[in-house]
Amino acid sequence: MPDLEPLSPLLIEPMVRAALAEDLGRAGDITSQATIPVGTTARAEIAARQPGRIAGLDLARMALRLVDPSLKIAIRLPDGSDAAVGDGIALIEGDARSILSAERVALNYMGHLSGIATATAAFSKRIEGTRARITCTRKTTPGLRALEKYAVRAGGGSNHRFGLDDAILIKDNHIAIAGGITAALQGAFANVGHMVRVEIEVDTLDQLREALDGGAHVVLLDNMGPDVLREAVEINKGRAVLEASGGINFETVHSVAETGVDMISVGWLTHSAPSLDLGLDIVFES
Amino acid sequence: MPDLEPLSPLLIEPMVRAALAEDLGRAGDITSQATIPVGTTARAEIAARQPGRIAGLDLARMALRLVDPSLKIAIRLPDGSDAAVGDGIALIEGDARSILSAERVALNYMGHLSGIATATAAFSKRIEGTRARITCTRKTTPGLRALEKYAVRAGGGSNHRFGLDDAILIKDNHIAIAGGITAALQGAFANVGHMVRVEIEVDTLDQLREALDGGAHVVLLDNMGPDVLREAVEINKGRAVLEASGGINFETVHSVAETGVDMISVGWLTHSAPSLDLGLDIVFES
Amino acid sequence: MPDLEPLSPLLIEPMVRAALAEDLGRAGDITSQATIPVGTTARAEIAARQPGRIAGLDLARMALRLVDPSLKIAIRLPDGSDAAVGDGIALIEGDARSILSAERVALNYMGHLSGIATATAAFSKRIEGTRARITCTRKTTPGLRALEKYAVRAGGGSNHRFGLDDAILIKDNHIAIAGGITAALQGAFANVGHMVRVEIEVDTLDQLREALDGGAHVVLLDNMGPDVLREAVEINKGRAVLEASGGINFETVHSVAETGVDMISVGWLTHSAPSLDLGLDIVFES
Amino acid sequence: MPDLEPLSPLLIEPMVRAALAEDLGRAGDITSQATIPVGTTARAEIAARQPGRIAGLDLARMALRLVDPSLKIAIRLPDGSDAAVGDGIALIEGDARSILSAERVALNYMGHLSGIATATAAFSKRIEGTRARITCTRKTTPGLRALEKYAVRAGGGSNHRFGLDDAILIKDNHIAIAGGITAALQGAFANVGHMVRVEIEVDTLDQLREALDGGAHVVLLDNMGPDVLREAVEINKGRAVLEASGGINFETVHSVAETGVDMISVGWLTHSAPSLDLGLDIVFES
Amino acid sequence: MPDLEPLSPLLIEPMVRAALAEDLGRAGDITSQATIPVGTTARAEIAARQPGRIAGLDLARMALRLVDPSLKIAIRLPDGSDAAVGDGIALIEGDARSILSAERVALNYMGHLSGIATATAAFSKRIEGTRARITCTRKTTPGLRALEKYAVRAGGGSNHRFGLDDAILIKDNHIAIAGGITAALQGAFANVGHMVRVEIEVDTLDQLREALDGGAHVVLLDNMGPDVLREAVEINKGRAVLEASGGINFETVHSVAETGVDMISVGWLTHSAPSLDLGLDIVFES
Amino acid sequence: MPDLEPLSPLLIEPMVRAALAEDLGRAGDITSQATIPVGTTARAEIAARQPGRIAGLDLARMALRLVDPSLKIAIRLPDGSDAAVGDGIALIEGDARSILSAERVALNYMGHLSGIATATAAFSKRIEGTRARITCTRKTTPGLRALEKYAVRAGGGSNHRFGLDDAILIKDNHIAIAGGITAALQGAFANVGHMVRVEIEVDTLDQLREALDGGAHVVLLDNMGPDVLREAVEINKGRAVLEASGGINFETVHSVAETGVDMISVGWLTHSAPSLDLGLDIVFES
Repeated sequence: MPDLEPLSPLLIEPMVRAALAEDLGRAGDITSQATIPVGTTARAEIAARQPGRIAGLDLARMALRLVDPSLKIAIRLPDGSDAAVGDGIALIEGDARSILSAERVALNYMGHLSGIATATAAFSKRIEGTRARITCTRKTTPGLRALEKYAVRAGGGSNHRFGLDDAILIKDNHIAIAGGITAALQGAFANVGHMVRVEIEVDTLDQLREALDGGAHVVLLDNMGPDVLREAVEINKGRAVLEASGGINFETVHSVAETGVDMISVGWLTHSAPSLDLGLDIVFES
Repeated sequence: MPDLEPLSPLLIEPMVRAALAEDLGRAGDITSQATIPVGTTARAEIAARQPGRIAGLDLARMALRLVDPSLKIAIRLPDGSDAAVGDGIALIEGDARSILSAERVALNYMGHLSGIATATAAFSKRIEGTRARITCTRKTTPGLRALEKYAVRAGGGSNHRFGLDDAILIKDNHIAIAGGITAALQGAFANVGHMVRVEIEVDTLDQLREALDGGAHVVLLDNMGPDVLREAVEINKGRAVLEASGGINFETVHSVAETGVDMISVGWLTHSAPSLDLGLDIVFES
Repeated sequence: MPDLEPLSPLLIEPMVRAALAEDLGRAGDITSQATIPVGTTARAEIAARQPGRIAGLDLARMALRLVDPSLKIAIRLPDGSDAAVGDGIALIEGDARSILSAERVALNYMGHLSGIATATAAFSKRIEGTRARITCTRKTTPGLRALEKYAVRAGGGSNHRFGLDDAILIKDNHIAIAGGITAALQGAFANVGHMVRVEIEVDTLDQLREALDGGAHVVLLDNMGPDVLREAVEINKGRAVLEASGGINFETVHSVAETGVDMISVGWLTHSAPSLDLGLDIVFES
Repeated sequence: MPDLEPLSPLLIEPMVRAALAEDLGRAGDITSQATIPVGTTARAEIAARQPGRIAGLDLARMALRLVDPSLKIAIRLPDGSDAAVGDGIALIEGDARSILSAERVALNYMGHLSGIATATAAFSKRIEGTRARITCTRKTTPGLRALEKYAVRAGGGSNHRFGLDDAILIKDNHIAIAGGITAALQGAFANVGHMVRVEIEVDTLDQLREALDGGAHVVLLDNMGPDVLREAVEINKGRAVLEASGGINFETVHSVAETGVDMISVGWLTHSAPSLDLGLDIVFES
Repeated sequence: MPDLEPLSPLLIEPMVRAALAEDLGRAGDITSQATIPVGTTARAEIAARQPGRIAGLDLARMALRLVDPSLKIAIRLPDGSDAAVGDGIALIEGDARSILSAERVALNYMGHLSGIATATAAFSKRIEGTRARITCTRKTTPGLRALEKYAVRAGGGSNHRFGLDDAILIKDNHIAIAGGITAALQGAFANVGHMVRVEIEVDTLDQLREALDGGAHVVLLDNMGPDVLREAVEINKGRAVLEASGGINFETVHSVAETGVDMISVGWLTHSAPSLDLGLDIVFES
Repeated sequence: MPDLEPLSPLLIEPMVRAALAEDLGRAGDITSQATIPVGTTARAEIAARQPGRIAGLDLARMALRLVDPSLKIAIRLPDGSDAAVGDGIALIEGDARSILSAERVALNYMGHLSGIATATAAFSKRIEGTRARITCTRKTTPGLRALEKYAVRAGGGSNHRFGLDDAILIKDNHIAIAGGITAALQGAFANVGHMVRVEIEVDTLDQLREALDGGAHVVLLDNMGPDVLREAVEINKGRAVLEASGGINFETVHSVAETGVDMISVGWLTHSAPSLDLGLDIVFES
């Protein structure tokens, strides 16, 4: 069964075009034009300067190909691989001006997504052996959500909602307005089609019981400590999917996972994971 | 004289529309539609959950207004201000569904940009009293460069090139191809218009001397320690602008600044600064 | 709780701009320009020439306003209302050239969507008193899916998936490849996030039993007669949502609904329902 | 001389990209990704489940190719052909996930356009042996006009105006404002370039005489019965092109055509013709 | 009856946005930001530095308003007016930075279009008293055709085809392929709808006779001297519209017009007319 | 070192697509469709009908290839070459309908850009032997600036700013507001990054001295006669780049160049240079 479906060119081509336009501006790479003779060829390697989980090669390749379709690109470590310091990730051959013109866009995408994948992989490794999976949130960089969710998958994580429209997540504000958990769930089931999943956030075990009685498909357990989470798992008896959330970090994630919850959502992965340090090393030929 | 020119609506409106489309998808905020009665109004406050430098209110306001032009928005702490924990940054009044539909896009922009501004402000504060200024690089999130450079300004930093086309920056690869610093600078001055600034990267003080003789407007001093930098400042005698670069972090930035260089560029600000934790607290009315 | 959430301007404005561009072309409404003096004002009424359920007024209003923001538009029968022959649906006042320039786009949208809403309302009425609801499919007009699904809601129907990405629907082809229903469902649950609903198509009651054992959230009962459907309802015992599908028409829908299934999907509503005949009658003033 | 000019890729590529985006959403075909192993290949046939005139293969092929350029597509019955039940229209070979991802967009286009072509062909056949030709109107689905007019041509019909800007059609409202037929025609000829055709709508034979005297190139005879139309043909003596219009259906079209008019316009063809039932049958290989 | 229909905002807004993006780039008007204090207001006048016919004020106003909706703009000499040297054309009041940011885009549009209008007006004046009218061609600046054709109308000229699709113009190449004038016209009338005008190019009077027999609506008389043109007018006897074309300039246009032809097409108007010199004079206030 | 970097397909493809859409409209080249049999092939030559400097072949080739990727195009005189009357510039072979459909867009681009290149080459030749170079301004056709600046380079000229954002040019209005040259320059240097070039406009030699003291990188000498310019060069002593500007034409440019200034800017090149007369001659084959 599939590991990591590649990003569709239909999705990423317009993004990469826009990113190239952002960097090339109106006059293009005037430094390379002024200092590198027409026709100079080069080999370049994208290499890891930090260990990490790779993600974003499709974007890098798209950037290079859009600048110059004649560039040859060989992938050494595909998305989802782990790179050690110094490992070559991709080899590029062709026109030197072209490679340098696309370099920064390619690396900016790869560094950003590999940073997310690396963080997700680290969290996932921390909870190995438990039933829990790491999942992301909607706290993503505007315009890059599909890419960042892909990076989470490349890191071994699972994806939460892609947007406000593809699943219901009833939060405290909604509950307050609707007049309680039961009423909110009734509203949800009455108004939403049969292909939509319904999750509700709860702060207490009493709320959890009410959510389960209301038929919630998924329950978000907000800011609960390990002991309460363990009790929640017992109360649930496998009825709803249980998602722990709220300020969970690399130090605390293992103790959360051991409670038996199904999902652990970590906003930090997509809004604050640092970029992975990658470089492009170039060897010029005649 | 101006502090912080606001982001032009011409620039940000299409971005925010795309970000809203990304979050609202095809069916919109189905949770709010299903649980919040039509006509419910609310007051909400965007507040700081961490201390930091604020940036991105224009984007938050645009997101709210595009979803619902009738929302009233009052800014308490404008971009460039410092917020303490709990400080109210903006007040929003109007339709509750509208506020909740735009919330995540508004906060994602503000958290990301305020994170960059906060980091820049911290670096800038570290070097107060020196002649140096903090500047950014082209290591930005694809598609968000103009916003991230704005956030650097909001943090008190200065902007480097916006793209490959608006200034020359000759790096080691270009020098190697062109056959040395002198040749590379000659190529640059011969091929580029009179309104373009020319910077060149050097690794040694001998290269610095050659760059100054070649008429470089700006010299990037790559990976030099404080002692070498100090010597570079003496050699330069105010001829070129001197920019220190290469792995400079919050620990080392002060010692670099004390050497007398003009600019210190820090890629980390835009590619890895963590998001600032902001929240939207809502008070519903009947 | 909400009846019919209006179509968001964020969604429909670009569509209506494109539709106006399609009709106005490069030179605009040259007939009105050549025959109607500048400054002529008029009142116009959008009226029903057939009885039916109205949908699409937001699009009509957007078309009129984009052509001329000064037009005054009063809605008499909002979306979701039933109009009798001759009923006035909306009143428009203002510049005559503007009204005539936007007329066709406005009516083309309203006729198309009201046709779908009318058909959905008729089907829904046919099954009143049963537990079943009418739902649509992905057999929609390319580019108009969100609008057509809105028209289904305006007709009292419920929406199925909006696209390939927001829910799982495993069809016969997938089952054949995956090696059976159990294997297909295992693949689905292993590979998909916890916020995604999983539906599977079955042709026989044995397949239904296997699907229920596999944990399917929704089961599509394909091309089954009323007796078999009734048996399926009994087997299900309320575990999964049951959706009847396959060649169901206005004659047969009632007998299907009486079997106790939850949903009845009808592709015809969006791919073949005829347009509702609406007209714009204009009264010129001096 | 040419029968049916293919739809230009310049025109349809952006449309098909948008239609694919509409169906694939943010995460793509998650069902195929979860249930079909990477690398599975298949053969598929697009086949007719109803007899009809085929139109839209260029769009189907574009959808398949945009999803996966490596798919092989062989056309068996090109646009403009008549298919019997069960006839294979196109054969597709290649990656199974790709075929299933593009299937619905391909079929939605083809079903919609073939429905229009089939209806047009039926009307055209009904009037064979007369001098009249079937033509369409501007009552088209917003955004699809060029495609629907192409489908009318595939059905053997002729195209009316593509928009408000490429020809003059003076209707009753314009005549009323302009102060009569003569004045309206004078306005038209005075204000419009020499490359624009001028048509005017008339309700009576007296109006027809006035229109002919005014030099109208084309006269639309609105809602006239066969006897009046026959008289109109005699009055015209071949001067203007005569177009019959107004509620003409499959039952009445022959008697209209026999009167000797040149064109018969039928709005129903593009706003209400039902979709042609086509299917994609897939045979998987290892 | 209308003189000059204003350019639709639907048409020009996206153009002006793109033009502003082209000039403002990524960082906007950095000169004004750096030198003009926030809040400085100014009055400015767009004035003529050469005499000429004005066109393009809608574009200038759109540019100013898009940069700053609070600017007040008063038109003194509307499009289609003649300005003398020094005449004020429009008055602008408001934020000084805003005015200076939009100045160049506003003037570039107005100078270009007023140049075309001025040239067209001069040609039109040269042929006053004849039956001929000046018309343009498809030799326009790519992307600006609708604007340039508008400028021709502002100069008192008439518009030819807007594109390849809205009328037939059979040229020598088509005639050669089709096998002669008669065959080419037969092809045209057989393949084109009844709302399309048919023009054919002829080089000799014999060809003209053949074109008239073939039913051409318009005949383009290519590169004929006044005597031959006069004979062509006699042969025509008012049947077709006659258009003289081919290297006609300001010196020769009057003698061509006197021959009795209906239209004189001049490509130079849109591809080579020099810009009209306009300036923006600014008066700053405190 | 490079002469003329080709225009990037990333930049020009969307422009050429829009230009083709503008010309082909909704129905395409209906004349060729109606008169040229499917499958007719032809050879065509783009040839000069006036002597001049060629620019724009990348755009012509893009137009031809977008209409029909199977066309073969051989360049005889690349951009930057000088063509004599009758010289063949490019040879095209392939489908006749395709060639004729793209002809006008191809020629409109080439005529416009070659006109600018020809004018620039003429000015450049006039000043050969001096140290001065010809440069352009921001007085360009909206939307075509990058192309027109490329044409200036093809004519041997140098480019000024591409927009308001990539360099500082302080004009009289800014100076007046800022309170003088010194204050304006201080504002500029305080507010702008270290990679931005600063130019200031002066009217007198005293202002020049103040500008040089203020550290201006470039000084624009506005409307000064040759004697004053010569004195300015002496005062400058090589400190700033000197740019002469203001109403300089083909008659006066040589005497300006002889004064020793570095740059001479000529707005006329991009706003008023006439199109170069090029034609496409076609030879049909069976």
